[in-house]
Amino acid sequence: MLIVMGYQARKEEIAAVIKAIECMGLRAEPIPGGERTAIGVLGNTGYVDDSTVRDLPGVQEVIHVSKPYKLVSRAFHPECSVVTVGNVRIGSGERPVVTAGPCAVESEEQIMRTARAVKKAGADLLRGGAFKPRTGPHTFQGLKEEGLKLLAAAGRETGLAVVTEVMSPETVGIVAEHADLLQVGARNMQNFDLLKELGRSGKPVLLKRGMCATIEEFLAAAEYILAEGNPNVILCERGIRTFDTATRNTLDLSAIPLIKELSHLPIMADPSHATGKRSLVRPMAKAALVAGADGILVEVHPEPEKALSDGPQSLTCEDFEALMNELKPLYNYLGF
Amino acid sequence: MLIVMGYQARKEEIAAVIKAIECMGLRAEPIPGGERTAIGVLGNTGYVDDSTVRDLPGVQEVIHVSKPYKLVSRAFHPECSVVTVGNVRIGSGERPVVTAGPCAVESEEQIMRTARAVKKAGADLLRGGAFKPRTGPHTFQGLKEEGLKLLAAAGRETGLAVVTEVMSPETVGIVAEHADLLQVGARNMQNFDLLKELGRSGKPVLLKRGMCATIEEFLAAAEYILAEGNPNVILCERGIRTFDTATRNTLDLSAIPLIKELSHLPIMADPSHATGKRSLVRPMAKAALVAGADGILVEVHPEPEKALSDGPQSLTCEDFEALMNELKPLYNYLGF
Amino acid sequence: MLIVMGYQARKEEIAAVIKAIECMGLRAEPIPGGERTAIGVLGNTGYVDDSTVRDLPGVQEVIHVSKPYKLVSRAFHPECSVVTVGNVRIGSGERPVVTAGPCAVESEEQIMRTARAVKKAGADLLRGGAFKPRTGPHTFQGLKEEGLKLLAAAGRETGLAVVTEVMSPETVGIVAEHADLLQVGARNMQNFDLLKELGRSGKPVLLKRGMCATIEEFLAAAEYILAEGNPNVILCERGIRTFDTATRNTLDLSAIPLIKELSHLPIMADPSHATGKRSLVRPMAKAALVAGADGILVEVHPEPEKALSDGPQSLTCEDFEALMNELKPLYNYLGF
Amino acid sequence: MLIVMGYQARKEEIAAVIKAIECMGLRAEPIPGGERTAIGVLGNTGYVDDSTVRDLPGVQEVIHVSKPYKLVSRAFHPECSVVTVGNVRIGSGERPVVTAGPCAVESEEQIMRTARAVKKAGADLLRGGAFKPRTGPHTFQGLKEEGLKLLAAAGRETGLAVVTEVMSPETVGIVAEHADLLQVGARNMQNFDLLKELGRSGKPVLLKRGMCATIEEFLAAAEYILAEGNPNVILCERGIRTFDTATRNTLDLSAIPLIKELSHLPIMADPSHATGKRSLVRPMAKAALVAGADGILVEVHPEPEKALSDGPQSLTCEDFEALMNELKPLYNYLGF
Repeated sequence: MLIVMGYQARKEEIAAVIKAIECMGLRAEPIPGGERTAIGVLGNTGYVDDSTVRDLPGVQEVIHVSKPYKLVSRAFHPECSVVTVGNVRIGSGERPVVTAGPCAVESEEQIMRTARAVKKAGADLLRGGAFKPRTGPHTFQGLKEEGLKLLAAAGRETGLAVVTEVMSPETVGIVAEHADLLQVGARNMQNFDLLKELGRSGKPVLLKRGMCATIEEFLAAAEYILAEGNPNVILCERGIRTFDTATRNTLDLSAIPLIKELSHLPIMADPSHATGKRSLVRPMAKAALVAGADGILVEVHPEPEKALSDGPQSLTCEDFEALMNELKPLYNYLGF
Repeated sequence: MLIVMGYQARKEEIAAVIKAIECMGLRAEPIPGGERTAIGVLGNTGYVDDSTVRDLPGVQEVIHVSKPYKLVSRAFHPECSVVTVGNVRIGSGERPVVTAGPCAVESEEQIMRTARAVKKAGADLLRGGAFKPRTGPHTFQGLKEEGLKLLAAAGRETGLAVVTEVMSPETVGIVAEHADLLQVGARNMQNFDLLKELGRSGKPVLLKRGMCATIEEFLAAAEYILAEGNPNVILCERGIRTFDTATRNTLDLSAIPLIKELSHLPIMADPSHATGKRSLVRPMAKAALVAGADGILVEVHPEPEKALSDGPQSLTCEDFEALMNELKPLYNYLGF
Repeated sequence: MLIVMGYQARKEEIAAVIKAIECMGLRAEPIPGGERTAIGVLGNTGYVDDSTVRDLPGVQEVIHVSKPYKLVSRAFHPECSVVTVGNVRIGSGERPVVTAGPCAVESEEQIMRTARAVKKAGADLLRGGAFKPRTGPHTFQGLKEEGLKLLAAAGRETGLAVVTEVMSPETVGIVAEHADLLQVGARNMQNFDLLKELGRSGKPVLLKRGMCATIEEFLAAAEYILAEGNPNVILCERGIRTFDTATRNTLDLSAIPLIKELSHLPIMADPSHATGKRSLVRPMAKAALVAGADGILVEVHPEPEKALSDGPQSLTCEDFEALMNELKPLYNYLGF
Repeated sequence: MLIVMGYQARKEEIAAVIKAIECMGLRAEPIPGGERTAIGVLGNTGYVDDSTVRDLPGVQEVIHVSKPYKLVSRAFHPECSVVTVGNVRIGSGERPVVTAGPCAVESEEQIMRTARAVKKAGADLLRGGAFKPRTGPHTFQGLKEEGLKLLAAAGRETGLAVVTEVMSPETVGIVAEHADLLQVGARNMQNFDLLKELGRSGKPVLLKRGMCATIEEFLAAAEYILAEGNPNVILCERGIRTFDTATRNTLDLSAIPLIKELSHLPIMADPSHATGKRSLVRPMAKAALVAGADGILVEVHPEPEKALSDGPQSLTCEDFEALMNELKPLYNYLGF
């Protein structure tokens, strides 16, 4: 931690800051600069809560060198992690995985039909929402437990492991009964009670980046799950909110190689939610893989025009098959 | 709802869209434009789920005229609402209220001392956090239930109604036992299970705007609470996340008069969290009231430099008294 | 400047960085931290170009303590500056000023009528655009030189000093002939050739904040003008671009007290462009003054519904008179 | 254009709006909706200036169906354009091009050495800045005309066409003398006088997207150049400004396939400026090409640690050669 004093900071103010640091059991190293003095803080072994000094007279700025996460950090765990979902290995040098399925489970016929189609086309995992977070209360909220059962059945029949979203701590148990990978949606990335409960569950977790979460906040959210003893976390870049509304969100692909430098966790990308536009899903799915993603999430619906949610961004089964055919030569290029 | 067809949309495509709308039990009104055709959708009595048409061939854009909220809307409830917390009336033509207290309840001595000071200075409500959402798991997370009891006791002794944050559905009961106003933090604005539980509780709710929530999403989140039969919702603008990091967040004061046009609910402002900087709290608190806020939230700590969280943005008891003295003539100017 | 080395930085890498700093004629102070080493750079008397070290092996981050501006900084010029436009003094302890007029000068009749109305209502300065920056080339671009002459004539008749925008270095001369205060629009905040030319002109400049300019970039842009020897710069907060499109821009009012801490220059606010909505102009104009603005810019048009640009955000002459009547008691409250 | 009336709009207000539309020589089509009335505007052949109606009593919202650009639009020019720079064809089905070179021309030795290296590695175009826009006035501003001559000489010797930035209308002539492709930087994307001058010059223009420019604004800026009769415009995505500062900017790769749907102009990507981090340049360069970019801009410097600007994001000559070797198999995958 570095404390930057203001231009006019007085000797006594600098002394008071040094004293406060020492009260915290740390060492203070004054660095008299050209325009002002900075004070280096030594001896901490992790992130320091700055509130005791930040506020002392004369202090202009407090700069953190340590990060609010450690367990997820590559610095403390240099080799890439692999998370196993069903019989699928995700991360490290493994071939990227494709997770496909409808935004929401709507009926047995819809999810079965989709599951068979994506399995046939070569998907590795089946996705489908049973509990749906929706902006307003007056729209379709998902089939809930019935949806979970339909999804699980489709997974069993096709032999695909299944992914679905969990929205609250008290439903972790029931969702964990039916799903192989538990998804935390962007709106819940900082629902800390949910993260802790998932940490205790030990089940593989797919943590989506919040719409306005910095990469540091994203990794700190994953830290909550690992801190409860669950190392099975897969990150997912799903687009951030920016000033531009031409796409539903802005897919931040550079976050993928950057997170691979900062963390050992696998990271996937969701071009469907990110772009919100079918025609952009195929190019962005491929771009994500070239950027280093360990997998992609793609929304597929047999009849997008009849979908109860997110129709415009869903691929048809035919579109999806076409995408999978484009991925084969791409895997060759990537060396898988 | 208006459906805009692409430049090259063919007759049959336009016909198919019209048919789809009619299947929804609505009426379609084609509007042949200079460059392309638009199709007006008539007969809906609320927000229409666009997914069935949005995705048909030839459709370029779907524009919603109705909003995803209704109960919170001024259009359906023209007169301002008043929410009563303890014996304090908030909203409509009432004098603005001041809610003051520490970010977190840290000890009996700290909360009691703060409560007496803010009461003496003229605060209307006492705030203090017992359950604290923190970016990383390795920092102080609040005193939990013990904090609730200390806060309630301080409220009883000073005769101030108390406000505290609730973070998950299963703690709504225990928090409701001890607090008069239940706060939903920015990170939980779209924690829909929490919103529904609060709707069922019937208790007054202080709903903070999400860091990257549009005003439409903010009002739609409040709609979740009203839709469960609880009309006692107070909105709170607490700063949004923008590209600029010079302040902790960007206080969006124009949201206050704008929300007063769109909704009948009371709205407060939190200059402490918004700016993150003590020196900006006083000017922004006053600016918020002039912009039309029904109240303000101000963090006060007897010894900010020893605060376990948010020290830098907390006013000392003396600062707070000075602010309250500046508010008296402002109330005169505002006609209270 | 502080250089933060990566976790795994080797001794030789640290030594190489120290050597590079010394080659720059500066002193290096290693600070071995809990997790990694930081290196303080001493002896610089201003902003240091970090590119020579930033990129050395082992370096993780370079943190600047000094700022890219100096002349505009309060640290180097503690007392507030006053800029005089015509016979109006702006800044420091002066009564805030009101600049009013149409977005664009459209005709002699329109500007004369507006000038008389705003003068009568108590405006201090007259504004009107002659050169108009417009998003697309197919809309009204202003009356150019003829507009300048009409504006100047309206100023002479009413005795109001006039403000208008200048868009390129080569038009600074002609605009300076006719106007008392030269405005740089948000889109040109970093048009450095324009800023330098204005610096050489010596004329008072109204510098609007760029739509996505940080406060540091805003002050650094003003530095360009002062660096050419022109101290007569007035800053103007006019709203920043955020994810929310409910208002045209987001008026960042906390920038006003913050900039007053960082700089000695006067700062005004433009609630008309910031909100883009007539009904929000009055509350935000008053909020800006309470936040500490040295003045406001308000768009006024005798017939907004006929305006060739920005009609929806223009006040009528009657609205403006009403605003001015609300400002008198506000000035009393503020002590003017 | 669609005009949405407020919930409480009265019959007379609706009639007044219809009348105003008819006064504009257009036809009005009322669409009585469930909650309110909308009015379709027919008969316009392009973008309509809404200011005459937008502001009438009862009007809640004005929605544009037409766009503020036409010449750049694919709707009016379905086939892809090709822009020829020197003897290099850019756009349509051509193999993507690689533009490489230092951020700034610093010396004859530096630019010659870089030119030879990038030519040898297979670059198609040579880039180098002579006029440098810098945030603050106290840093290196470029070698100006001398830099242009050094760049041109390096181009001649290596047979590479050259690209450099032009910052103001009055320097278009001199820059055009020495360069084959004139770059407009992000800060000048809406410097309309510069765009018009470039339109008149007829020279190929590389237009970079503004840091906070929407895709609509970006295309409307290009429209300025085409409107002056110059069709030789290449767009460039170079990262937008978002809340996240982990990368210098956020490379918006989905803008590439989206712009290809909306416009016929070629589009390139600049992973160096977008990410600001050397280690991210290679993955993002490849991702951009897979997303459909017609070319990439890459910063290369023989000694990045000695660069006078943007060292941290520059590749060494060796890094660049490695990138070019990775592109060969990628071109095969992409079918070139």
